[in-house]
Amino acid sequence: MNITAPLAQLETPAALVDVSRMQRNIARMQQRADALGVRLRPHVKTSKCTPVVQAQLAAGAQGITVSTLKEASQFFADGITDILYAVGIVASKLPAALALRRHGCDLKLITDSVASAEAIVAFGREHGERFEVWIEIDTDGHRSGIKPSEPALIDVARALHDGGCTLGGVMTHAGSSYDHDTLDALIALAEQERAGVVLAAERLRAAGLPCPVVSLGSTPTTLMAEHMTGVTEMRAGVYVFFDLVMQNVGVCSGDEIALSVLATVIGHQVDKGWAIVDAGWMAMSRDRGTAKQKHDYGYGQVCTIDGTVLPGCTLSGANQEHGILSFASIDKEWQGTTVHAPPIIDIATRLPVGTRLRILPNHACATGAQFPEYHAFAETGELTTWERFHGW
Amino acid sequence: MNITAPLAQLETPAALVDVSRMQRNIARMQQRADALGVRLRPHVKTSKCTPVVQAQLAAGAQGITVSTLKEASQFFADGITDILYAVGIVASKLPAALALRRHGCDLKLITDSVASAEAIVAFGREHGERFEVWIEIDTDGHRSGIKPSEPALIDVARALHDGGCTLGGVMTHAGSSYDHDTLDALIALAEQERAGVVLAAERLRAAGLPCPVVSLGSTPTTLMAEHMTGVTEMRAGVYVFFDLVMQNVGVCSGDEIALSVLATVIGHQVDKGWAIVDAGWMAMSRDRGTAKQKHDYGYGQVCTIDGTVLPGCTLSGANQEHGILSFASIDKEWQGTTVHAPPIIDIATRLPVGTRLRILPNHACATGAQFPEYHAFAETGELTTWERFHGW
Repeated sequence: MNITAPLAQLETPAALVDVSRMQRNIARMQQRADALGVRLRPHVKTSKCTPVVQAQLAAGAQGITVSTLKEASQFFADGITDILYAVGIVASKLPAALALRRHGCDLKLITDSVASAEAIVAFGREHGERFEVWIEIDTDGHRSGIKPSEPALIDVARALHDGGCTLGGVMTHAGSSYDHDTLDALIALAEQERAGVVLAAERLRAAGLPCPVVSLGSTPTTLMAEHMTGVTEMRAGVYVFFDLVMQNVGVCSGDEIALSVLATVIGHQVDKGWAIVDAGWMAMSRDRGTAKQKHDYGYGQVCTIDGTVLPGCTLSGANQEHGILSFASIDKEWQGTTVHAPPIIDIATRLPVGTRLRILPNHACATGAQFPEYHAFAETGELTTWERFHGW
Repeated sequence: MNITAPLAQLETPAALVDVSRMQRNIARMQQRADALGVRLRPHVKTSKCTPVVQAQLAAGAQGITVSTLKEASQFFADGITDILYAVGIVASKLPAALALRRHGCDLKLITDSVASAEAIVAFGREHGERFEVWIEIDTDGHRSGIKPSEPALIDVARALHDGGCTLGGVMTHAGSSYDHDTLDALIALAEQERAGVVLAAERLRAAGLPCPVVSLGSTPTTLMAEHMTGVTEMRAGVYVFFDLVMQNVGVCSGDEIALSVLATVIGHQVDKGWAIVDAGWMAMSRDRGTAKQKHDYGYGQVCTIDGTVLPGCTLSGANQEHGILSFASIDKEWQGTTVHAPPIIDIATRLPVGTRLRILPNHACATGAQFPEYHAFAETGELTTWERFHGW
């Protein structure tokens, strides 16, 4: 394998996907789902890219999760029919949802209020469409959803069921898992997520309402859950690439991060120990997700072109098309005490103009979205362009 | 004028441009340049959009500034030839720069090191091309450039001049102006920027080297500079739309912000006082530029669909496609003391599902980049789609 030569020919900045790492990530999550006895419905908002999603399906995923109707439309055009639109539906989006279903897409919607449920019912009646709707459950207080024990759960379910919709099930996403970084806390949150959504399902069934699907997931909770009793499917997105936020959470190591940004050194401020690279926040995104975690990587962890991490070297600052790269001072033992060794002084010799580097992102979903395409490289050194889409 | 009806028909989230505000912003900056006796070379990285840039040129701008060679290529295809690529050139980008010049684009490059100057010279000789190069000057220590009094300035200039390049001039960008918010500090920084770049020009001329262009600028410094003695042109970008960061800096008011994101309320968490909207960080960008300023607007200031600011109402949180909207508690005078009035309690009645809102962005350059197009509306109520590009 020699990927350095083809990477040296790319224009920078460029988004790179390490296909071997991605395939290992896909296999790992699929094995989790298989071992836990549930289906895996990956969230494709991370990649928005056909070859990535095809690899997930080829590994055993059943259906996909999307965050926009554009994703639904694009992946339906690829032949994928089992699609969950995992953002609460609103009346103005129902015509687009109807159009997808009329073309044969088995699109599932979600809601968490009687008001929205009634809007779906009214629109479905008007157009003679039996929408499938899942109810969103709030198991960790971080965003949308009905709490598992709230009376409103039954009200929403009855409005849908009695109004002629297919009540498909319940779903939840414990997104607050990103805020934890210990095994105990992640296991506890995974159980809270599972117990909550299962309770909601049991309440619906006890009220005589159908609830075939019980769906949950985030990358950290699906990887750390001890069991999935009562659950039928799990969802996760960022695992396909992983990133520095997930490394800090503790669910991946740096050599599992499959997405990076290829950049070129364009200048220096030698007295400050800075190298300037052509990947600023337009390439990395403005995501500073590691700022509040145990290790702050600035705008990204810097690696050599062959992917070797440069310890303590991060994008410590970013303008639109300029990244500021610097080495942190390093703690060293000296005569029995810890001292801060100065960072490498001669940055222009260490990383001369023209040097190519790979930068690992804080948040793969945000960084990928900055690029019209990925450059996917295989262990053989083969480089392929994978288009991705953006917008709504 | 009734823009509410057409805006109610758009799919959300959508990026809106208020054309009247944009035209006023363009006129204001052009009048500044005219009054100061210098040319205006707007930075088009903010909009990446042909109708916006054409409006700037129609108002009197001379030439444009770009942050990527893709911008250069796209705007050259529109017929614009006088283009400054304002990011230090590196050898791997010289073939693309050469191709543009060979097609008739009067592309100017910049550099701040002997190493890069020598690379340009060598490439120019090899291909028989006389590149025009400007030298980047560092007047505020925030990023790239040679300090005005550094010996390296003359070394770089001689390398270019003796090597057969056209030494076009000097340029600087006092980007640290974004960190200030008082008139005195902005005036002082503008003078520091001006004095520094003029000193660099004088040193070149004293060394017998040509320096026809003396270029400077950022939106805050160009708006606050007291004079431009010795300067030939000014550059600014974000002024065309303005944003909440610029409002905090003090160079615009909220009713001058021309870019906003149209969003729809999709749900609530009534007990928390939250409305959930369909504009998350994918729409607003992850830019939290106001977090360190005197007023933190979260992910954006919320307005009604007709553009009226809702005081204290911001996107206080964001996931990829979910924005969390909340009202801050409001300080009120009560029996002689200041008390925190509770925020509006009944959020679901105040902003029911389906409500359309406009959200002003922290940073127009970052928010615009999330969208494939702007929806530009005129005072007449006319709505036009303006495409924009992204990527490199």
